[in-house]
Amino acid sequence: MDDDESREHVVPGSDEEPDTPDVRGYDFRGEFDLGALLDAYATTGFQATHLAEAVDIAKRMQEADATVYLTFTSNIVSSGLRETVAALVREGYVDVIITTSGSLAEDVIKTAKPFKMGQWDADEAALRERGINRLGNIYVPSDRYVWLEEYLYDFFDDFFAEKPIRTPTAFARELGETLEDEDSVLKQAADNDVPVYCPALTDSEIGNFLYYYRQGHEDDVDIATMDDYEDLIEDGMLADTTGLIAVGGGVPKHHAIMTNLFRGGADYVVYISTGMEGDGSLSGATPEEAVSWGKIKENETNYTQIEAEATLVFPLLVAAAFEM
Amino acid sequence: MDDDESREHVVPGSDEEPDTPDVRGYDFRGEFDLGALLDAYATTGFQATHLAEAVDIAKRMQEADATVYLTFTSNIVSSGLRETVAALVREGYVDVIITTSGSLAEDVIKTAKPFKMGQWDADEAALRERGINRLGNIYVPSDRYVWLEEYLYDFFDDFFAEKPIRTPTAFARELGETLEDEDSVLKQAADNDVPVYCPALTDSEIGNFLYYYRQGHEDDVDIATMDDYEDLIEDGMLADTTGLIAVGGGVPKHHAIMTNLFRGGADYVVYISTGMEGDGSLSGATPEEAVSWGKIKENETNYTQIEAEATLVFPLLVAAAFEM
Amino acid sequence: MDDDESREHVVPGSDEEPDTPDVRGYDFRGEFDLGALLDAYATTGFQATHLAEAVDIAKRMQEADATVYLTFTSNIVSSGLRETVAALVREGYVDVIITTSGSLAEDVIKTAKPFKMGQWDADEAALRERGINRLGNIYVPSDRYVWLEEYLYDFFDDFFAEKPIRTPTAFARELGETLEDEDSVLKQAADNDVPVYCPALTDSEIGNFLYYYRQGHEDDVDIATMDDYEDLIEDGMLADTTGLIAVGGGVPKHHAIMTNLFRGGADYVVYISTGMEGDGSLSGATPEEAVSWGKIKENETNYTQIEAEATLVFPLLVAAAFEM
Amino acid sequence: MDDDESREHVVPGSDEEPDTPDVRGYDFRGEFDLGALLDAYATTGFQATHLAEAVDIAKRMQEADATVYLTFTSNIVSSGLRETVAALVREGYVDVIITTSGSLAEDVIKTAKPFKMGQWDADEAALRERGINRLGNIYVPSDRYVWLEEYLYDFFDDFFAEKPIRTPTAFARELGETLEDEDSVLKQAADNDVPVYCPALTDSEIGNFLYYYRQGHEDDVDIATMDDYEDLIEDGMLADTTGLIAVGGGVPKHHAIMTNLFRGGADYVVYISTGMEGDGSLSGATPEEAVSWGKIKENETNYTQIEAEATLVFPLLVAAAFEM
Ligand SMILES: NC(=O)c1ccc[n+]([C@@H]2O[C@H](COP(=O)([O-])OP(=O)(O)OC[C@H]3O[C@@H](n4cnc5c(N)ncnc54)[C@H](O)[C@@H]3O)[C@@H](O)[C@H]2O)c1
Ligand SMILES: NC(=O)c1ccc[n+]([C@@H]2O[C@H](COP(=O)([O-])OP(=O)(O)OC[C@H]3O[C@@H](n4cnc5c(N)ncnc54)[C@H](O)[C@@H]3O)[C@@H](O)[C@H]2O)c1
Repeated sequence: MDDDESREHVVPGSDEEPDTPDVRGYDFRGEFDLGALLDAYATTGFQATHLAEAVDIAKRMQEADATVYLTFTSNIVSSGLRETVAALVREGYVDVIITTSGSLAEDVIKTAKPFKMGQWDADEAALRERGINRLGNIYVPSDRYVWLEEYLYDFFDDFFAEKPIRTPTAFARELGETLEDEDSVLKQAADNDVPVYCPALTDSEIGNFLYYYRQGHEDDVDIATMDDYEDLIEDGMLADTTGLIAVGGGVPKHHAIMTNLFRGGADYVVYISTGMEGDGSLSGATPEEAVSWGKIKENETNYTQIEAEATLVFPLLVAAAFEM
Repeated sequence: MDDDESREHVVPGSDEEPDTPDVRGYDFRGEFDLGALLDAYATTGFQATHLAEAVDIAKRMQEADATVYLTFTSNIVSSGLRETVAALVREGYVDVIITTSGSLAEDVIKTAKPFKMGQWDADEAALRERGINRLGNIYVPSDRYVWLEEYLYDFFDDFFAEKPIRTPTAFARELGETLEDEDSVLKQAADNDVPVYCPALTDSEIGNFLYYYRQGHEDDVDIATMDDYEDLIEDGMLADTTGLIAVGGGVPKHHAIMTNLFRGGADYVVYISTGMEGDGSLSGATPEEAVSWGKIKENETNYTQIEAEATLVFPLLVAAAFEM
Repeated sequence: MDDDESREHVVPGSDEEPDTPDVRGYDFRGEFDLGALLDAYATTGFQATHLAEAVDIAKRMQEADATVYLTFTSNIVSSGLRETVAALVREGYVDVIITTSGSLAEDVIKTAKPFKMGQWDADEAALRERGINRLGNIYVPSDRYVWLEEYLYDFFDDFFAEKPIRTPTAFARELGETLEDEDSVLKQAADNDVPVYCPALTDSEIGNFLYYYRQGHEDDVDIATMDDYEDLIEDGMLADTTGLIAVGGGVPKHHAIMTNLFRGGADYVVYISTGMEGDGSLSGATPEEAVSWGKIKENETNYTQIEAEATLVFPLLVAAAFEM
Repeated sequence: MDDDESREHVVPGSDEEPDTPDVRGYDFRGEFDLGALLDAYATTGFQATHLAEAVDIAKRMQEADATVYLTFTSNIVSSGLRETVAALVREGYVDVIITTSGSLAEDVIKTAKPFKMGQWDADEAALRERGINRLGNIYVPSDRYVWLEEYLYDFFDDFFAEKPIRTPTAFARELGETLEDEDSVLKQAADNDVPVYCPALTDSEIGNFLYYYRQGHEDDVDIATMDDYEDLIEDGMLADTTGLIAVGGGVPKHHAIMTNLFRGGADYVVYISTGMEGDGSLSGATPEEAVSWGKIKENETNYTQIEAEATLVFPLLVAAAFEM
């Protein structure tokens, strides 16, 4: 290889200038302004650009008067994002919630007793001795579950009095109606007529206490899920436009995109996820993958994914995209 | 700071020698031997050590005659790990399966029509046009679902004839009994009397076709989950010893550890996961975290986690720990 | 196992209440306030708590009048974080910079020609044809390197006139002095007398053009690194207190903690990283690991790590912890 | 939306069958065979497919008689992969090594004293007291560095006797010549005439002891890097074909692809990495990204990346692709 050929490889030059914006970060001169920072994120690159896209898409969901689905994993309610979710519902920005069962159990507990800050690298055997459950860097003392058991038994009596086989949405709504805490997701959902879908309702302490309840009382009470699935599908088909904000992955995220398939895909989509694309998981699957299934409508600028742990970015998205 | 003090920081010395094994990798001299390689992984460090621990724990599960729970996410069945799971069940090494609904749908499809290898970075809108669904680097042509719909309608007729409200385990078992493919997870589970728990059964094409089925036929058929949850808990309580192999996280992993809580924790545990601990998710939660909850028994050498994408390591674990 | 024993497992209760703060997220009622949001992050859990800790530690660095080391990988300068780094230096908050060579090359280019926003999933062969280099979702047209080559040749003439063998810090300082852009990291570093360490200076286009320069001109010019290493060590030993902010990992992060070892460890440390602990890498290594080496001083609240992509959190850290 | 339209979304059907292989995992019936397992990985999907591709590409490198670059981060030598690297060099499969400085320091130590297995979640302050350094789940007692200091001082006397300013490759070669351990990477490299590039040689204990050495002895000894860079570029330009195996990212990976740019790109490329694409880092950058820069030649099947921690897969790659 001669030198000229090599130079051609190293410094090929280019005539063409892309007609995209310049990469340029926030200008810290002058008074700090969060809105301007998030605007600057659009041209900061990497994930900051995705957060700016998410803000834009969430605003456009509102302008388009979309039916907004908010999905989240249970640990979101374990964390201080519970209050952010409740605020979004309270302000009327959410039409459908889909989540997992731990969210319901923990939201109810927090109406009476707080979770406590903890350490990731605790001595877990010692914690077990002390009756303290660790959930990341959050501690949940076991007495919370003693309290929850009592609370649920009272509730079960009323809930199953109507009929022995009930749905998760009825469970969430009627339970929410019993709560008084304005920061409760379930209470706000009940007050604002937002259905809370939870297809795997048994998979938490709710299932555990339902198990004990059936042992002690009537063994014919049960949870059945197809009526909910029907409603979720049909409400989606009736909606003119849908928007989806998926905080974390798992069953909630899939439930939302799967039922949006019936209407030809969601119109606006924001994912916040730590999932890894390369493991082929649903949790790690990009919005692009969902396009091939028809679960998200193809449209270059209507979906994005922020690769981030949600506590870092979800409150910023809410602050920037919604009038709170 | 004077020089001696600085040297004390940089080269503090140490009298003590840890009494742990030397770090030492596989010796490639001589004939290659997979068993010896996996032995050498024990002293290779990082995740290789965890794979070696997993092999050891899986062997001890068998020696202790533990009731073995195998949990996995749906994409495991999408991939070629389906045949590995089926083989483990066929050889009698699995007592309980817990999974999500996509596993069931895709296992049935694969008895009739294969999935196809694909590309991660496809043009998804073009794929949608062609009727090809992308699942990581795997393609699922849409005609698979046309076929599945037919198959399930026939099955539903029989299944709900018995009674209108059924459980996920009954669904999996009776469906498995209709299958002929020896590499089918559901068929092997049915043949070997291994219950397949699936608390969120609606969350896949099974839910979709059940929705259509109810539209067209009888709208009172439904899936209820508490009988399954009761069985899962009580079988766990009856077991002398339990072992858990969780391939991926989500509802299946949590369902297994949550129900093992009733018996004071699982005895032997292997997690294979790409989950991130720092997001506080159940999927990323380490075995140590489950110890604080009493979901895993405290014991230094009875649990481990391999941080890896499962297709890379699960077949190796099976090859090394089980007589296949 | 009888039922009471089982209940003891499931609902063990707990007498003790941890004396840590309640988990509680931001209250969106009232006017939005970023400071209050970041305060609330302290009790939000997961990574939000780490961001709040980082703000606190960065404030305490300043109160303690620590010598502040800022380390970052080259892609930070590729992104819009370049302007944030420059601002921190301009405002006098940084005493030492350690980075990799791409940072220097790209900072100089950006004084004359911007990088452009791009797409992750581009057709790379087509981009190559068009002379456009992709760096994540950022595009760098190849003419930037044609320009850089000219610029560096002029600079090299002056730089090596003094003597043929020079150090990376001299390179960065003298190059910075030629620049006019107030948003340039190198210019601000030169103006504010902040040394820029770059032990692997050859590993970028700077090395490439130095190679061509030596071909065409004098083949005895060279870059030697031990004088820099000596200065870095000794300045660290002279410092009363040191604070370290590592944005990304790699050589820059290690260089900072390794040289802090000579003084018995850094006093205040913030890591922002996407690195994975479980791969045993330096980039993924936690502050805790560095404590065992004496590279960070043991002290429960003087170090933290935010597991996040830097563009999402570094500007927030700067806005909240420094008077800009 | 009417029902037919909805059905069209949910079960669109497809006429076309992709002409790619069926997804199908390893068949555990019969005698276990590692070669057959890795063949089956090609059709297992997700990362297993990438491992199978890597085996194929590494075989083709050999058939094409490519100049093989092996790059690795320092922790590879900390782990038991050191012996795998040494074996590959010993068997003559490697032509160029590029690594970071810790690799050299630790390879030398291991010729005399082993590293020890340890725990991730140790009490680091206690370890520091005991003089034990933690490196993931590996322990390095501090006396290793006391030993290394002595060893290097003797070596430095000879090394710098020739001339005061030397290159990293000379350092590695002459140091390797002093070693006797057949499992040493440096010894095998020296014996087999494989240059070991290490542009950031100061960034490890080698730099530390060079610092002390200069203090006590002659302060004009130094390490300069441009002669190495020149050789690396020119040997690449002379090579007919190049193959690159990058174990981990950072400077070594970049150094290899950057210098391959001079020849118009590497011909065959395998990356093994835990890096995250979405952080825009060089470590997380895919082979596709390097195609846009001309650092890898465009060719659909000549490059791949395995997203995995290297200890799990590198020995398998070596076992399957090279006659050992
Ligand atoms: N607090 C709890 O987490 C809790 C409590 C009780 C029961 N459970 C049960 O455990 C099961 C599994 O939990 P799950 O399905 O809610 O989800 P999960 O915790 O398994 O998370 C699924 C995926 O979502 C993503 N994710 C999670 N947390 C994230 C975050 N903070 N930021 C960004 N991405 C994030 C990750 O990719 C993760 O792999 C459920 O049935 C649930 O009811 C959980
Ligand atoms: N723009 C470029 O990245 C560029 C350009 C020219 C040369 N190079 C050269 O490539 C080599 C390797 O690059 P490097 O050493 O700068 O680091 P790197 O890009 O390899 O990153 C090292 C680690 O830092 C962490 N990290 C990187 N980006 C992050 C982010 N945005 N947020 C959080 N964590 C992040 C990750 O854990 C990553 O593995 C260097 O020699 C450099 O000079 C890079």
